[in-house]
Amino acid sequence: MNLMQMIERCAQINGKSMATIDGQRRHTWRQLRDRVARLAAAYNRLGCEQGDRIGILALNSDRYFESIFAIPWAGGVMVPINIRLAAPEVEFWILDSGAKILCVDETFAPLITAVREKLDNLEHVVYMSDGAVPEGMISHEDLVAENVAIDPANREGDDISGLFYTGGTTGRSKGVMLSHDNQVINALQTAPAFEMKLHSVYLNVAPMFHAANMIGMLNATLAAACHVFASRFEPELTMKFISRHGVTHSVMVPTMVSMLVHHPMVTDYDLSSLELLLYGGSPMAEAVIARVQEVLPDLRMVQAYGQTETSPILTILNSEFHVFEGPLSGKTKAAGQAVPGVELAIMDDEDQALGTGEIGEICARGPNIMLGYWQLPEQTAETIRDGWLHTGDGGYIDEDGFLFISDRVKDMIVSGGENVYSIEVENALCKHEAVEACAVIGIPSEQWGEEVHAVVVLAAGKTTSVEELISHCQQLIASYKCPRSISVSEDPLPLSGAGKVLKRELRAPFWEGHKRQVG
Amino acid sequence: MNLMQMIERCAQINGKSMATIDGQRRHTWRQLRDRVARLAAAYNRLGCEQGDRIGILALNSDRYFESIFAIPWAGGVMVPINIRLAAPEVEFWILDSGAKILCVDETFAPLITAVREKLDNLEHVVYMSDGAVPEGMISHEDLVAENVAIDPANREGDDISGLFYTGGTTGRSKGVMLSHDNQVINALQTAPAFEMKLHSVYLNVAPMFHAANMIGMLNATLAAACHVFASRFEPELTMKFISRHGVTHSVMVPTMVSMLVHHPMVTDYDLSSLELLLYGGSPMAEAVIARVQEVLPDLRMVQAYGQTETSPILTILNSEFHVFEGPLSGKTKAAGQAVPGVELAIMDDEDQALGTGEIGEICARGPNIMLGYWQLPEQTAETIRDGWLHTGDGGYIDEDGFLFISDRVKDMIVSGGENVYSIEVENALCKHEAVEACAVIGIPSEQWGEEVHAVVVLAAGKTTSVEELISHCQQLIASYKCPRSISVSEDPLPLSGAGKVLKRELRAPFWEGHKRQVG
Repeated sequence: MNLMQMIERCAQINGKSMATIDGQRRHTWRQLRDRVARLAAAYNRLGCEQGDRIGILALNSDRYFESIFAIPWAGGVMVPINIRLAAPEVEFWILDSGAKILCVDETFAPLITAVREKLDNLEHVVYMSDGAVPEGMISHEDLVAENVAIDPANREGDDISGLFYTGGTTGRSKGVMLSHDNQVINALQTAPAFEMKLHSVYLNVAPMFHAANMIGMLNATLAAACHVFASRFEPELTMKFISRHGVTHSVMVPTMVSMLVHHPMVTDYDLSSLELLLYGGSPMAEAVIARVQEVLPDLRMVQAYGQTETSPILTILNSEFHVFEGPLSGKTKAAGQAVPGVELAIMDDEDQALGTGEIGEICARGPNIMLGYWQLPEQTAETIRDGWLHTGDGGYIDEDGFLFISDRVKDMIVSGGENVYSIEVENALCKHEAVEACAVIGIPSEQWGEEVHAVVVLAAGKTTSVEELISHCQQLIASYKCPRSISVSEDPLPLSGAGKVLKRELRAPFWEGHKRQVG
Repeated sequence: MNLMQMIERCAQINGKSMATIDGQRRHTWRQLRDRVARLAAAYNRLGCEQGDRIGILALNSDRYFESIFAIPWAGGVMVPINIRLAAPEVEFWILDSGAKILCVDETFAPLITAVREKLDNLEHVVYMSDGAVPEGMISHEDLVAENVAIDPANREGDDISGLFYTGGTTGRSKGVMLSHDNQVINALQTAPAFEMKLHSVYLNVAPMFHAANMIGMLNATLAAACHVFASRFEPELTMKFISRHGVTHSVMVPTMVSMLVHHPMVTDYDLSSLELLLYGGSPMAEAVIARVQEVLPDLRMVQAYGQTETSPILTILNSEFHVFEGPLSGKTKAAGQAVPGVELAIMDDEDQALGTGEIGEICARGPNIMLGYWQLPEQTAETIRDGWLHTGDGGYIDEDGFLFISDRVKDMIVSGGENVYSIEVENALCKHEAVEACAVIGIPSEQWGEEVHAVVVLAAGKTTSVEELISHCQQLIASYKCPRSISVSEDPLPLSGAGKVLKRELRAPFWEGHKRQVG
């Protein structure tokens, strides 16, 4: 299987229906297929040969979508770039991937112009926005207009379809090599959870470079559904998109969901078209789940867990388990159950499988495990051992086969010999009415090695004290897990491009001059 | 991926729930996994090595289900045998496959005992029924009880999982080699259509040897749902099973569906648990669809088309297209649209792709195309050309990507140079209120080469004349397509084990002494 066949099939089974809607631009699947096949011809003429990398650095748009499919159509390998990176990091990704061509929009054109002379491998820059094309760049629309559609390149299922760099929240960013089969099969594995149909409408609002939106986008394409594009997440604009286009499905991170359902205008918009929201990237606090059910009672919520290395989904928590009462309750804190074709196991430090309820490293086998890290054979061998991908996350599987994430292994707090999983502390803190957001980290402690510390953002107009928050936690979780200290932040928590809290940044000031034991 | 992982996952994600219900015998997924792993150990001890074939000749049962998974678990290759075969045909399948072990039930034990001395390759016969074990056979239950669970054999995705012999309705029966990936991926490709969940209940009522039930059974296993077994199809018993076990899903051939909904007691049973019925094997007359909607208004019907060689599903006609009014109407006679991952094309005699609406041979590529025919490299090369499987069926694809089957190419009637597709004639005849069932065939004609002939079974208590039926057809289809002659049969139409009308038998008396041009 390959990505190009997905587009061919959409043109065959839903050719007359809308494929992409981006502002005034609308294309049917038949038109879209034609545009992708023309753009691929252009990439070939610009020098893209089988296996060559083409980067994309842009906000969400229909043209981003076209590039994602035109690159493999031309035989190339897509490299979607994180939109939150600083210039030196962008340089690193482009140099490391050896991209010949880069596609940018107006937001990122100035950055690339500024650093372009350092990017030796870069031969062409394609400009994806409307209006005047910056000097030295080529217009995406011109490329589509001036080329003739070609047949898709011959790519096998195990050929590389893309390099997807890890967020770099822990250490050096690595290029994850996914194959066509990895991506198509993970879409098949998750299709029963997404439940999209020919007439579904998918909102691309999570950043398109990220694996979370990628799998939602691929599922919508698998269903030959309609794609709507929001250039980036903004709560009210997102609500406008949903009501205007009758959006039925989307993928968001919990931060985005929380901002949406707590927005003062959430009840002013007609969001009733929304059938299913898949969230992932990090767990969602129970209070947010409850709020979603309050304001959008018909919405099915589905949680997914995985990582870029798993294309990306390993487990799904179906909507029926998002309940607080009845026989299916008690699983809202779980990350779900293995999707079909995924073998899930918890392993100890010696790679021995652990039993039910025992905490260890989450490991997986299956057709959605990456080919490896780009030009990093040692890290690949370290991560995939005996066929099992080692996720670096800690967790356990309960007797019903539900995976519970304890924490990123490297985020786990070890205090006085006890393991503290920050999510549990965060869940407790978030239940306090004055807390809008929080992050729990380990900070150095003479006595305990590490000590539990919380950074808290208060809800607008609310006040509380550190003492009250600690006492609130003590009512909910064991004393050793409760924060010893709390700092109240005036600013929002620092987030990665994917909406994950950047705990490294929060930790940094506390750890200057200290060495932290991890793993 | 492989079949054993499906069972491991069921034990992990739904271990405490019922896996199989067969009369008084009930096993949870955890128990089932254990039984399969013990049975596999037994097969190994009986001499089954990697790649060895094990046949199954039995009516539907939970033990049949256990064997289907225990055989690959032991590293073996399953050979499910058609239950409608005559003794010489059974002999041929067992000899051709070279099966070392055969699993039979009480229905087929006498047949095997009678011919066993001719079956040189057969070393052991396992008896799957309760009660006294026939001489020279070994009890399935004893094998489970006396062996210790083993880990599943190491089988790769492209290793053979089974030999599935074609029905033999056209020529010599051939062993279709399917791989583990073929079977698992086709289940993934069709899972969005089946819409099964953890709590679904699947009724195995179509014969388990057949590809149609196999894909339903695999889908239920993919969903870790519950399996109920009816030893064979009988309308009233099927209704009893549905109401007693709360059956939600099943796979039937149109003949079975028709018998069910026309049964006088259909409204006496509570069949409201039934959510989805997938039918395939042959198209369903519109009158039957309408009757289903009349007696089971909440039931979603889904049509599937494919063949053993495609593991088996190529196209799906979703329930939303089973309507006679509105924008989605006009597709009830279609076989559906390509499932994800399947490339579908219509080709002419020179293997050139034809355009929209043009009739030719239905061809397909995809991860569900068989490895080939067992020990028949020439027939394999003839059938899979340039990566495209040639189905031998005739049809066209309309502008919305719906496949319409004209006929089995070899069943097509060529009359006076015109191609007549029997399904069209049958659809017309079935609309007459006096017609319960019919089959249209070509019979020899001095003048036209072939002439359209119909065999008709009248509905109970109805009468009509040949003249009236022909005149009825003339109102619906072109004159050259209408039957020139009609025979009214007192007996039901002869059916294959899979419920297909055996047109070869109907044709035989007419063609004695004639040579029929086919293909």
